[in-house]
Amino acid sequence: MPSYKAPIRDMQFVLQEVWSVENLLNTCPNFAEISPDLIDAVLEEAAKINETLLQPLNQSGDQEGCQFDNGKVSTPKGFKEAYQTYQESGWPAIAADPNYGGQGFPQMVNTLNEEMLSSSNVSFSLYPGLTHAVANAIEQHATEELKNTYIPQLTSGEWTGVMCLTEPHCGSDLGLLRTKAESNDDGTYNISGTKIFITGGDHDLTDNIVHLVLARLTDAPAGVKGISLFLVSKHKLNEDNSIGERNHVSCGSIEHKMGIKASATCVINYDNAVGYLVGEPNRGLNAMFTVMNTERLAIGVEGLGLGEVAYQNALLYAKDRLQGRAPQGATHPEKSADPIIVHPNVRRMLLTMKAYNEAARAFAVWVGMHVDLEHHHPDAEQRQQAANFVALVTPIVKAYFTDVGLDVCNMGLQILGGHGYVSEWGMEQFVRDVRIAQIYEGTNGIQALDLVRRKLLANNGEHLAIFTEQVDKFINEQNNNNAMQEFIEPLNNALTTLRDVSQWLLDNAGKNPAEAGAASTEYLHLFGLTAFGFMWAKMAAIALNKIDGSAEKDFYTAKIHTARFFMQRLLPKVFSLKQIILTGSNTLMAMPEELF
Amino acid sequence: MPSYKAPIRDMQFVLQEVWSVENLLNTCPNFAEISPDLIDAVLEEAAKINETLLQPLNQSGDQEGCQFDNGKVSTPKGFKEAYQTYQESGWPAIAADPNYGGQGFPQMVNTLNEEMLSSSNVSFSLYPGLTHAVANAIEQHATEELKNTYIPQLTSGEWTGVMCLTEPHCGSDLGLLRTKAESNDDGTYNISGTKIFITGGDHDLTDNIVHLVLARLTDAPAGVKGISLFLVSKHKLNEDNSIGERNHVSCGSIEHKMGIKASATCVINYDNAVGYLVGEPNRGLNAMFTVMNTERLAIGVEGLGLGEVAYQNALLYAKDRLQGRAPQGATHPEKSADPIIVHPNVRRMLLTMKAYNEAARAFAVWVGMHVDLEHHHPDAEQRQQAANFVALVTPIVKAYFTDVGLDVCNMGLQILGGHGYVSEWGMEQFVRDVRIAQIYEGTNGIQALDLVRRKLLANNGEHLAIFTEQVDKFINEQNNNNAMQEFIEPLNNALTTLRDVSQWLLDNAGKNPAEAGAASTEYLHLFGLTAFGFMWAKMAAIALNKIDGSAEKDFYTAKIHTARFFMQRLLPKVFSLKQIILTGSNTLMAMPEELF
Repeated sequence: MPSYKAPIRDMQFVLQEVWSVENLLNTCPNFAEISPDLIDAVLEEAAKINETLLQPLNQSGDQEGCQFDNGKVSTPKGFKEAYQTYQESGWPAIAADPNYGGQGFPQMVNTLNEEMLSSSNVSFSLYPGLTHAVANAIEQHATEELKNTYIPQLTSGEWTGVMCLTEPHCGSDLGLLRTKAESNDDGTYNISGTKIFITGGDHDLTDNIVHLVLARLTDAPAGVKGISLFLVSKHKLNEDNSIGERNHVSCGSIEHKMGIKASATCVINYDNAVGYLVGEPNRGLNAMFTVMNTERLAIGVEGLGLGEVAYQNALLYAKDRLQGRAPQGATHPEKSADPIIVHPNVRRMLLTMKAYNEAARAFAVWVGMHVDLEHHHPDAEQRQQAANFVALVTPIVKAYFTDVGLDVCNMGLQILGGHGYVSEWGMEQFVRDVRIAQIYEGTNGIQALDLVRRKLLANNGEHLAIFTEQVDKFINEQNNNNAMQEFIEPLNNALTTLRDVSQWLLDNAGKNPAEAGAASTEYLHLFGLTAFGFMWAKMAAIALNKIDGSAEKDFYTAKIHTARFFMQRLLPKVFSLKQIILTGSNTLMAMPEELF
Repeated sequence: MPSYKAPIRDMQFVLQEVWSVENLLNTCPNFAEISPDLIDAVLEEAAKINETLLQPLNQSGDQEGCQFDNGKVSTPKGFKEAYQTYQESGWPAIAADPNYGGQGFPQMVNTLNEEMLSSSNVSFSLYPGLTHAVANAIEQHATEELKNTYIPQLTSGEWTGVMCLTEPHCGSDLGLLRTKAESNDDGTYNISGTKIFITGGDHDLTDNIVHLVLARLTDAPAGVKGISLFLVSKHKLNEDNSIGERNHVSCGSIEHKMGIKASATCVINYDNAVGYLVGEPNRGLNAMFTVMNTERLAIGVEGLGLGEVAYQNALLYAKDRLQGRAPQGATHPEKSADPIIVHPNVRRMLLTMKAYNEAARAFAVWVGMHVDLEHHHPDAEQRQQAANFVALVTPIVKAYFTDVGLDVCNMGLQILGGHGYVSEWGMEQFVRDVRIAQIYEGTNGIQALDLVRRKLLANNGEHLAIFTEQVDKFINEQNNNNAMQEFIEPLNNALTTLRDVSQWLLDNAGKNPAEAGAASTEYLHLFGLTAFGFMWAKMAAIALNKIDGSAEKDFYTAKIHTARFFMQRLLPKVFSLKQIILTGSNTLMAMPEELF
C-alpha cells in the first residue's frame, strides 16, 4: 500500500523563501489577522488530516468505488465519517469569505491544501472541491436572499456545491445545450433536462447538494448568448432554511470509469425542478466562468498532487529495491545488489518527477498569490494586473500541470516495474486517477486554444508581457552573479524562444484562422517549460544564497542539483517545440477528412 | 463498445509495395510453397477471426477478468470456446516449423497477425503468444526426445508454453534468482521455488501448459553464470505422451492489475516438480534469450496493435461528434456543429496517431523480413547480417513502439474527452492494456541500455551501420528526385543527428561508465524517430511514384500528407534529444542518494 507524507519543508520554502507570504499578508488588509506562524500551523494540521485520515481511504475507495442503487449514490466505506471529521474540523471554510463564516486564508496557502488533498485522496477531494467555487459564484452573481440562504452552509461544508454544464450531445461546445428553464409566477424557474459527467452530482456525505445549472430560458437566443445560470437545490428548503422535501432532481446513474472511482460521476435529471436565476438572464456562461477558472487552477494542482505522491512512492521503492550494480561499481557491496536508485535511467525518471513537481508547486503558489492580489490588493490597478496574470496562466496550470502530471505518474509506475502495474502497490491508481485531469474543466486542447486565442492574441500579447517582464527583471538582477549564469543562460534562451514564437503567432494568426489551434498544444508546453525554468532559476538563486553555513545544506544542495538537471535535460525541449510550431498549420489542415 | 477493422490495405501496402514479400519468398527456398496470394488469403482470414471472434470478447474479458478459486484459474466467459476455434483453425501453427506440423509462413507476415491479435484482444493473445517462442527455444536447445515430445503439441496449440523468469526479489537482475534444481538419478531434476508475474502461467484453455523455468543447479556458480533452463510440464506425461498425473506445479494466486485483466498473471510454485534440462547446464540465460528476443518483437507490436485500434475508434468519434465550428468557418452548416475532426488540435492528435502507427507497421514488417532472412537466407553471411540487424533494432521495436503506443492510446482517449475516460467506450482499456508493454519482457529502460551498450558500443557501431547505410542508400537514390526533397532533407538531418550522437557515445562512454545509461532513453527515442522518418520517406517515395492515374489516389495522397506531417511536426524532436544527450551524465549522477 502506498504512503504519503506532506512535503511541508518544500511548501514552506515556496511560501516563505520564494514568494514571501509575509509580503502578501502585509499588502492586503484583509489578511491582517493571519500570520506566517498561523499558516505554518495550518499546513501542519492539513498534513495530519491528509496523511492519517484521507490517504488511508484512497486505495480502499478505489477498490470499492461508488455504488448506485435504487436512485441513491453511496460513497465507499469510511468516506462519510471522514467527511464529517473533515467538515467539523473546519477545512471547507479555510479559504472562504469571513463574511459567511469562512476563515479567509490566502489562496496562496489554500493551493497547498489542495495539493495535499490530491496527493492523499483525489476522489475524496472532489466532493468538497467545487463547493468553495460554487459559493464564490453565488456571492458574485446571486441575489442577497440566495447568498444568505446558501453560502453559509456551503462555507461550512454542511452542504456541497456542484456545477452542471455537460449534456450528452454537448461538452466543449456549450452553445448546443438544451436544458430548459421555464419562468414561474413566483420568480422561480422550472428546470428540465439531463446533465452528464456531474462530479459529486449526488452522494451520501451531506444532507443537501447545491447545483449550479446552465440552462436556456424559453425565449433565449440560440448559442452561448442564450445560456443562463440557475441554482437548484437537491432539497427544497423550508421557511427556516431547514431541509424540506426533495426537489425534482434525481441521479439517473453513475459512470464506470478509468479512475477516481470513489468520486461519483453522475447523470443528473431535472424534471421541472425548482431553480433560481443566478446573475443576469442569458449571461450564465460568464457567471459559470467564475467557478470554472477557480476550478481550473485546482485541477492543475491535482496533476501536481498526484505527481508528488507518485514521486514519494517511487523514491521509496528505488532506495529499497536491490537490482543490478551501479555503473561505476557496487555502491552497496555488502548487499546482494545495489538499490536501483544507482542506475542513471532510474535517476533520470526520479529527477524528472522531482523537477516537475517542485517547479509546479512554486508556480502554483505564485499564481495563488496573484489570485489573492486580484481580489484583495488595495490598489485597483494592481488588482487588474494580477487578474490579467491569473487569466494568462490559468490554462498553463490546468493543462501543463496535468500533461506533466500524467508523465510523472507514469514514470513512478515505471520505476516499480511489474509491481507498478499491480494494483496492490497503488502506483497504477495514480495514473488512472490523474488521467481525468487532462479532460475535465475543459480539455487540455481547449486550454491550449484559450491560451493562444484569448490570452495571447486577443490582447495583442499584453498579458504575456506581464509574465515575460518578471522573468526579464529576474534575469537582469542576476546578470552579475557568476554562480547563476548556468541557470540564467538557458532560461534566457527559453524566454527568447517563447517571445519569438509568440511574435510569430501575433504576426501570422490573423492571416489564417487555423494557426492558433495548430500551434496551441506545443505553445502551451513551450510556455510551461519556460515558466518552470523561471521557477528553477529563482529557486537556485535562493539556494545559492542561503547554502553557506546553513543547517539545511542538503535541502539547498538538492535544489541546485535539481535546477541544473531541469536546465540541461528538460528545458531544451523548447527548441524542438519552436521548430514544430513554425511549420504552421498546413500539415494539419491539408488532408481531407475522408482520407483519414 | 469499440470496434475494430483490420487495416488490410495498409498491411498489403507494407508487405508488397514497401518491402516486397515476393522478393523474400523467392530468396528463401523454405518459402517455395507460399505465394503472395496465399498470404493475402491468410491476412483476410486472420482479419475475420480477429474482428468477429476475438474483438467481441475484449471488453467483456476486461470487465470480468480472470478468476482464481481453489487453486484454479478461470479465463473470462467465451475465452475457452474462442481458443478452441482459434486453435482448431490452425492459427497457433501459422509461422511454426513445418517439421513439427507448422505452416511455415514468414515472420514478415506473422507480425501482422500479431498486430491484429493485439488490436482485437491483447489479453487473449497472451495465452498462445509465448507458445511459438517456447517451441523455438526447445527446438534450438533441447534433446531430440524433448523436441519430439513437446513441440508438436505446442505447434498445434493443443498445449501452450510459458516462460518463468521473475521471482519476488529478482526481476531485471536475473543473477539474483533462487529457484533451485536438484539432479535425480534418472536424468530429471526436482525444481523448487516461486516465480511471479507469469503471464498465462495457469489457465483453463488447454489441458497442459509447458513451462520454461530458469533455476539454479545445486552446484551452480553465483550470478547469471549459474542459471540453467528447465522444461516443467504442468502435467506429467504417460508413456504414450498422453496427459498423466499433475506435476508439482501450482498457481498460488493471480495479480489484480491495471489492465490485461483477462490475461492471468500468476504466482507459480514449484515444489519438487519434475523438470528436464534444456541446453547446457549454467547456460540457461542464453537459451532463454531465444524466447525473450522473439517476444520483445511481439511486445513492440502490441504497442502498434493497441495504437491502431485506438486510432480507429478515435477517428470514428472525431467524424461523428459535433462540437464547435472549423476555424475557417462551418464545414457542415446544415448541422448544429461541425464534427470535431475539423479542429487543428484534434487533427494533430489523429495525424500523430496515424503517423506513428503506419511507420511502426512498416518498420515491424521490415524487421520481420530480417528475422526470416536471419533464419532462412541461403547465404551464411546474409544470415549473419540479418541477425545483427534484428539484434540492433529489437530494443527499438520493444521500447520505442510501446512508448509511442502509450502516447497514441492516450491521444485516442483524449479525443473522446469525458467519454474516453468512461469504461463503456473502451478507450481507457486500451491505455490500461498498453501500459504493461513498457514493462514486461525487460523494461523499456533495460531495452534502452541494451541498445546503447550491447547494440551500439559493444561492436563499435558496426551494427548501427547496417541501419544507417540502408538509409544513406535510399537518400542517395532520391537525390535527383525533386518531389522527394521535402522528405529527404529532414530525414538526412535526423540521420546526421543520430550519427553525431552515436559517435559522441562511442567517444565518451568509455571514459565514464554512467554515460551509456544516462543517454539511453533519449538515444532510443532519437533512433526510433529516425527509423520512422526513414519509413515515411520510403512510403512517400512509393506513393509519389504510384499516385498518377491510380485508382487508389486517396490512399497514396493520404500517405504523402501523413509523411509531410511526420517530417514537419514529429521528426524535429530529434534536435532537442541530441542537445539533451550531449549534456552527459553529470546532472543525473551528481546528486547523492540521500538528497532525493
